[in-house]
Amino acid sequence: MRYVIKVAYDGTHFCGWQVQNNGRTVQAELNAAVKAAFGEDVTVTASGRTDAGVHALSQICHVDLNADIAGEKLADALNQRLPDDVSVIKSAVAPQEFDANRSAKKKTYVYKTYFSPRRNPLYDRYAVWVKGAPDLEKMREAAQKFVGEHDFSAYCASGSQVKTTVRRVYSFKVEEDGAFVSFEVCGNGFLYNMVRTLAGTVLWYSLGKLSDKDIQASLEEGDRNRVGKTMPAKGLTLQSVDYGFDLFGE
Amino acid sequence: MRYVIKVAYDGTHFCGWQVQNNGRTVQAELNAAVKAAFGEDVTVTASGRTDAGVHALSQICHVDLNADIAGEKLADALNQRLPDDVSVIKSAVAPQEFDANRSAKKKTYVYKTYFSPRRNPLYDRYAVWVKGAPDLEKMREAAQKFVGEHDFSAYCASGSQVKTTVRRVYSFKVEEDGAFVSFEVCGNGFLYNMVRTLAGTVLWYSLGKLSDKDIQASLEEGDRNRVGKTMPAKGLTLQSVDYGFDLFGE
Repeated sequence: MRYVIKVAYDGTHFCGWQVQNNGRTVQAELNAAVKAAFGEDVTVTASGRTDAGVHALSQICHVDLNADIAGEKLADALNQRLPDDVSVIKSAVAPQEFDANRSAKKKTYVYKTYFSPRRNPLYDRYAVWVKGAPDLEKMREAAQKFVGEHDFSAYCASGSQVKTTVRRVYSFKVEEDGAFVSFEVCGNGFLYNMVRTLAGTVLWYSLGKLSDKDIQASLEEGDRNRVGKTMPAKGLTLQSVDYGFDLFGE
Repeated sequence: MRYVIKVAYDGTHFCGWQVQNNGRTVQAELNAAVKAAFGEDVTVTASGRTDAGVHALSQICHVDLNADIAGEKLADALNQRLPDDVSVIKSAVAPQEFDANRSAKKKTYVYKTYFSPRRNPLYDRYAVWVKGAPDLEKMREAAQKFVGEHDFSAYCASGSQVKTTVRRVYSFKVEEDGAFVSFEVCGNGFLYNMVRTLAGTVLWYSLGKLSDKDIQASLEEGDRNRVGKTMPAKGLTLQSVDYGFDLFGE
């Protein structure tokens, strides 16, 4: 039986999602929890990888089990075997032909910053400090330029191998909440480091370090010298994955 | 010269504010930063102690220095010597006769919970998990009962020595933000564990574990058997301290 689980994790002490030889990963923790709970050797498959230090409020995964456990009971069975920084928030029997990776239609990431004259330890775990005052209007102006289908090759870290660097961004919102400014990007998929580089570009545009022409050249000519810096991992959270239907029967 | 500083800290890895023989404290870190920056042996005085695990968004302190440094420069001088979980957010020369402890008029604490069927690692550092759905109306009903001047002896952990257990609560707000429910209590002072026990009592009242009569008996007769549980330290943050005037010339 195939099951679907919604997983939240604090990425601070993880070397990312995917199992690797050196370093703690979320996937390895989940595989081990399944092994401990049911004695089965499995590979838990996610909607996509997240990098070292990146958080997830809702990572969606599937896993195939021989064990006969009710869909909604799987979450607690795994949580008993998981460390404090990973938790299965929901579980269910997966719909037919469901694949957490291939069935994903849209993903939403949130990149969080806080604007303050000095670093604040209470804000600093899940958000990145920016000195000064935010120019929301300029940020929204920049964010809007990325909405639609574009070749994001300039926003893709080198070393990644993908068939195409064309992606569709459905929305790119800039929201203020007290000292925090969040960038919420929804798209049909993201390249390696794309959200972190988009956040850096929107920020740099708002600070006057990049112009309209820079952003245009980055999208039209793939000019990587005209994008902002790739922001630190800790500000990034995978917020939700949309499959076009409700996975947990709510 | 006396200086005033506004300090933020993540209490997770601290044994509280006050210097002690065993265990890391915020006061010891600040004293050490002053020593490292100016070579002076001082004791930094706060508006009041916070317990092990309790956070502060705005702890106000004073410190007397021989060093002749401009008020606004002190923050950065200390931050260069402070660990990641403490930061001086603002600094200034203190007004005449200012004492961070004795001059404090009002303090505001926020106790944060989140309501969810399962624990969420991304919410869990600064808030306490409560299973189920919140009844905000009942919570607000309970909170309102504490506003005014009362003898809070039933809300004071044993072992503390104070002249009087009478305190005035100016306001007690219950706010919902997504999964989070926050209790914001403003008063002229708080007894040891008082805010954490008030939060537990409001919660228990909303869950039907305590009645109107219980709360009445706790306030009128000091009956400690009729209050809620003292909630965990990690949900508590010292939000602000009010001195009746602006400390930092804003």
